[in-house]
Amino acid sequence: RPVRSPARGRSLPWNAGYAEIINAEKSEFNEDQAACGKLCIQRYEFGAGEDQEWLTLCPEEFLTGYYWALFDGHGGPAAAILAANTLHSCLRRQLEAVVEGLVATQPPMHLSGRCVCSSDPQFVEEKGIRAEDLVIGALENAFQECDEVIGRELEASGQVGGCTALVAVSLQGKLYVANAGDSRAILVRRDEVRLLSFEFTPETERQRIQQLAFVYPELLAGEFTRLEFPRRLKGDDLGQKVLFRDHHMSGWSYKCVEKSDLKYPLIHGQGRQARLLGTLAVSRGLGDHQLRVLDTNIPLKPFLLSVPQVTVLDVHQLELQEEDVVVMATDGLWDVLSNEQVARLVRSFLPANRDDPHRFSELAKMLIHSTQGKEDGPTGEGQVSYDDVSVFVIPLHGQGQGSS
Amino acid sequence: RPVRSPARGRSLPWNAGYAEIINAEKSEFNEDQAACGKLCIQRYEFGAGEDQEWLTLCPEEFLTGYYWALFDGHGGPAAAILAANTLHSCLRRQLEAVVEGLVATQPPMHLSGRCVCSSDPQFVEEKGIRAEDLVIGALENAFQECDEVIGRELEASGQVGGCTALVAVSLQGKLYVANAGDSRAILVRRDEVRLLSFEFTPETERQRIQQLAFVYPELLAGEFTRLEFPRRLKGDDLGQKVLFRDHHMSGWSYKCVEKSDLKYPLIHGQGRQARLLGTLAVSRGLGDHQLRVLDTNIPLKPFLLSVPQVTVLDVHQLELQEEDVVVMATDGLWDVLSNEQVARLVRSFLPANRDDPHRFSELAKMLIHSTQGKEDGPTGEGQVSYDDVSVFVIPLHGQGQGSS
Repeated sequence: RPVRSPARGRSLPWNAGYAEIINAEKSEFNEDQAACGKLCIQRYEFGAGEDQEWLTLCPEEFLTGYYWALFDGHGGPAAAILAANTLHSCLRRQLEAVVEGLVATQPPMHLSGRCVCSSDPQFVEEKGIRAEDLVIGALENAFQECDEVIGRELEASGQVGGCTALVAVSLQGKLYVANAGDSRAILVRRDEVRLLSFEFTPETERQRIQQLAFVYPELLAGEFTRLEFPRRLKGDDLGQKVLFRDHHMSGWSYKCVEKSDLKYPLIHGQGRQARLLGTLAVSRGLGDHQLRVLDTNIPLKPFLLSVPQVTVLDVHQLELQEEDVVVMATDGLWDVLSNEQVARLVRSFLPANRDDPHRFSELAKMLIHSTQGKEDGPTGEGQVSYDDVSVFVIPLHGQGQGSS
Repeated sequence: RPVRSPARGRSLPWNAGYAEIINAEKSEFNEDQAACGKLCIQRYEFGAGEDQEWLTLCPEEFLTGYYWALFDGHGGPAAAILAANTLHSCLRRQLEAVVEGLVATQPPMHLSGRCVCSSDPQFVEEKGIRAEDLVIGALENAFQECDEVIGRELEASGQVGGCTALVAVSLQGKLYVANAGDSRAILVRRDEVRLLSFEFTPETERQRIQQLAFVYPELLAGEFTRLEFPRRLKGDDLGQKVLFRDHHMSGWSYKCVEKSDLKYPLIHGQGRQARLLGTLAVSRGLGDHQLRVLDTNIPLKPFLLSVPQVTVLDVHQLELQEEDVVVMATDGLWDVLSNEQVARLVRSFLPANRDDPHRFSELAKMLIHSTQGKEDGPTGEGQVSYDDVSVFVIPLHGQGQGSS
């Protein structure tokens, strides 16, 4: 399988590197999709009339950001393609709706600038609300908006599918990483590896998912048990006391097995094999509005969240070194390479290729080659990923100042 | 107000120190309650018959633990007193129900020891279930059981009230800290201050509480708004775009104010003043089954959790030094002293009083004096707490081996 990368003439924001490989015939298409670009956020102001007509006021006061995104599709590439074509527009719209708060020293209580109560700035101050909270809110809302768009578009075109979404946005000297699904972004520096995202899977979100089934038992349609057991129970377990846990427990206890405990578990399997309702390996993402448990009418969507978790990296405070990068990749990479292995590959590759203007792109390709059991990297441990793999390598040095 | 401490002849487990002060006439009684003692966990085994009669098998195979607990009551001391008299029994019962799993190298899939499926140990291994998970589960269940007991007892006796609960349990070389409410436990060592608990207040649990009101809007009875705003909105805000956040958001955004947004907020106020439904400053605890919003029929209980968060300290792995202690206290202490201030007081007091056999008790008293604006401690900053304050100081050195 070839490792693909953008043509050398097409440079990505911040000279980021990108590469991808298509799965080993697991599906017909590349279910991963990627997008990146400049985010031009215009500053509008409400018109005077009641129709709130938009007027471009000061075109020179644009806010510029950069955007990189990975979408890992399932059930076909449709949702991932829609997300790659849509999410940045949703985000731009959400940011433009709050841009006056973004450029203020402190977000104002009223977006209009009108001060209804003289101590409004004090209330905002006491809540600790900063401009970055508006970006986080905009990302959260953009993911939800994009999910709704995907739902409508897929329904209208008779298509199906869902995807995870991992987005990095640089704005006003900060890097925001928003994640819904099981892709991952890490910061690799000479002396540090820092997680910038956390995976959302049926395992990591067990308590939220069990809680929902507790509140709405009808979502299980009598076909599944909400409880977690170390393995699926069988008839011989009836009447025995076995290990279990329910939604309110982070520890384990024992319960006497009843007949209803023999149903298929809401969350079943271990690690990579864990599935929600026997169907899905992720618990957050976009799309999947039509997804049903095989041969039933039980929808998955109520258990899925489209809202991402957002982490913020204050790039200005990092004292960046020349080879500090963010590595973003879909689960195909992380299934076979640990964070530390990726960090080792980064730290050996970049200093050795300091003069190559395409080194971040080459590094992205090299990381993918390292998932193919080749002896490219110093790990050379022959791990193989048969999944789609997509990787961004985003250099941070000299870029933090790049947005104004 | 006098600072009270147990008589010198009555030593507490591990020679722990304890002291308390009653509030400055905020209420008629000390609403804080404390309890501590030895936890003797018996090993039972199922009888042969179907009636599963309990038989004491090997009385010499008792498991011994130690228990310290603080309960901070509200709406009267009744719930706190019941909790202080009950929770340790609930915990003992819960631990005895799983004791065979506790003493095994790895908790067995079946408590009976019967192996239904030959790879059961492998399933338990893959889930990473350890004996400490059974203790965590027992603590979680014990808090819930105690909450039910308190609900029944208060109703039967026509009393009302609720309380927070902070419990430390030493068992098999580990210290478990279970917390439901706004008390706090910290580990103080020469070079380290470590949080052993996290506060549960309407602010820290905002998203959980808003989510519940989203799922069950009828819980607000049309009297409250689920949304958070920097301040309570008024008529002048109508039609304006103001800062807000909803259950799915950790960031902030703007919304156009509608009439329903002018209702009293589900969570209102800032920091110490934050209240759930205008009524309660904590979001987890025991009791409060009868609690209603003033002059309404709106119950608080659906929003409250009795389940604690449990943290585990592996005392054996700490390389304990002589003056390593755990400080547990109700919010009256932490409202006026920071973790670092408490750590400084501990680090200056203990070495200076190395020969005093009652030094942990004296330290507990000194910490309380430091909340009364006296110049006792090196902080001497004159902060004053008018609340009930209760403090345990638990020395760890030479004790981690004490349970067998």
